[in-house]
Amino acid sequence: MDSAVVIAMARERGFDVHALSVRYGQRHTSELDAAARIARELGAVAHKTVHVDLGSIGGSALTDTSIDVPLDDDGHAIGVDAAKNTIPVTYVPARNTIMLSIALGWAEVLGAADLFCGVNAVDYSGYPDCRPEFVEAFERLANLATKAGVEGAGLRVHAPLQHLSKADIVREGVRLGVDFSQTVSCYRADEAGRACGHCDACRLRADGFTAAGIPDVTRYV
Amino acid sequence: MDSAVVIAMARERGFDVHALSVRYGQRHTSELDAAARIARELGAVAHKTVHVDLGSIGGSALTDTSIDVPLDDDGHAIGVDAAKNTIPVTYVPARNTIMLSIALGWAEVLGAADLFCGVNAVDYSGYPDCRPEFVEAFERLANLATKAGVEGAGLRVHAPLQHLSKADIVREGVRLGVDFSQTVSCYRADEAGRACGHCDACRLRADGFTAAGIPDVTRYV
Repeated sequence: MDSAVVIAMARERGFDVHALSVRYGQRHTSELDAAARIARELGAVAHKTVHVDLGSIGGSALTDTSIDVPLDDDGHAIGVDAAKNTIPVTYVPARNTIMLSIALGWAEVLGAADLFCGVNAVDYSGYPDCRPEFVEAFERLANLATKAGVEGAGLRVHAPLQHLSKADIVREGVRLGVDFSQTVSCYRADEAGRACGHCDACRLRADGFTAAGIPDVTRYV
Repeated sequence: MDSAVVIAMARERGFDVHALSVRYGQRHTSELDAAARIARELGAVAHKTVHVDLGSIGGSALTDTSIDVPLDDDGHAIGVDAAKNTIPVTYVPARNTIMLSIALGWAEVLGAADLFCGVNAVDYSGYPDCRPEFVEAFERLANLATKAGVEGAGLRVHAPLQHLSKADIVREGVRLGVDFSQTVSCYRADEAGRACGHCDACRLRADGFTAAGIPDVTRYV
C-alpha cells in the first residue's frame, strides 16, 4: 500500500513515473503481480521487475525458508515491538539499500533525477534502513556514485511517507484514488494476493484503516 | 585481477574471507568461474555468486546487447580517456553501489564488520563509483542502514587498491602469490577465460604488467 500511495503522490506532483519492483526472493510473487497492475492503473509510464536472489545469502524469514515467520501461542505472527527498538526476523538484510541501488541504476539509464521510495519511519522503527538519516545518506551516495552527480545536475531521493502514520497513508491514498483492495501487504499472502490477517504487515495495515476511520477493503483469506 | 589481489591482501591482514561475485548480466561468465576458483586457491572461507539481472534496465555495453563495445577503425576497443574525464559506454549503471549493497546484506547475515572492495581511483577515473568519496559515502550509508550500525559496533569499507597504479597492483599480487594467469579482466573473454587483448580492460592490464616490469602471463585468444 505504501508503494501505491507513493506512485499516486509522485503523479500528483507531475512526475512521469517509472515504477520498479525488486524480486529479492520473497516466498510469494502475488505482491509483484499486484505492483505491475497497480502501477498501470495509477498511470505509471513503465513498470519493471528486477530479480536479485537474496535468498542465497539468507538471514531473513522472508527469503530464507529455514527461518519461520514468528507466531505467538495462538498462531498469530509476533508483532514488531517498536518500543523495544528490536529488529524483527522479517528484516531483509540491506533490503532498502539494495532496492534503492537498483533504482539508481535505472534512473541513470533513464536520465531521471528523482527517486521516490515508500520508506516510513513511524511504523517500522525496528528497521534501520527506514530512517530519515538512511534516506539522506543514500541521496548523498547517489550524488557521488553517478554521472548525474559527477556532471553536476544532482539527484534527489524523495520519501514522501517518511513521517506519515499508517492512518495518514490510508487517508492520502483514498484522497488520491488508490484502490487498496488491489494492494498486497501480507508477508504470507496466497497466490491470489489474499492476506493472512495475522502477520505484522497485516496488523499494521488493519490498524491503519481503523485509525483512519476508513473501512478495511483488504481481501483476506 | 584487482579482486584477486584484494582477497590476498585481506588474507595477509588476518581476515577470514567470504568472497562475493555478482552476476549482473555480463555477456560472459568465465570471469565468475575464475572468481570461484581463485577465491578457493587464495584461502577464502566461502565464495558466493548472487545474480541481479541489470540487463533488464540496460544502458551498458557490458549488459545490453544492443550497445556494442566500441572499437576503433582497426577493430580495437576505444580506450577510456581519463584526461577527458568522460564516462565510457562500458560503465554499468550504479554497479559498485549495487555490488556493495549486496555485500552489505551478506555481511549482516554473517555478522561481518569489514567489507573489502577492489575499486581503484587511478586507472578508472571515468567511473564515478570508483572514487574515494564514493567509498566513504558508502561506509557512512552502511553504518546507518544496518543492525551493526544501529547497535553501535560499526562497519568499515576497505578499498586497499584505491590509490595504487595498475603496476602497483601487479607487483602486490606477485608478492602475495596471486596466479594472474587464472584471473580474467577482459570484457570479451571467451568461454575458457582467454582475453581478447584489445578492449579497455585488456589494455589497462597489459600496460600494468609492462609498467611493473613483470612478464604478462595473461592467456590471450
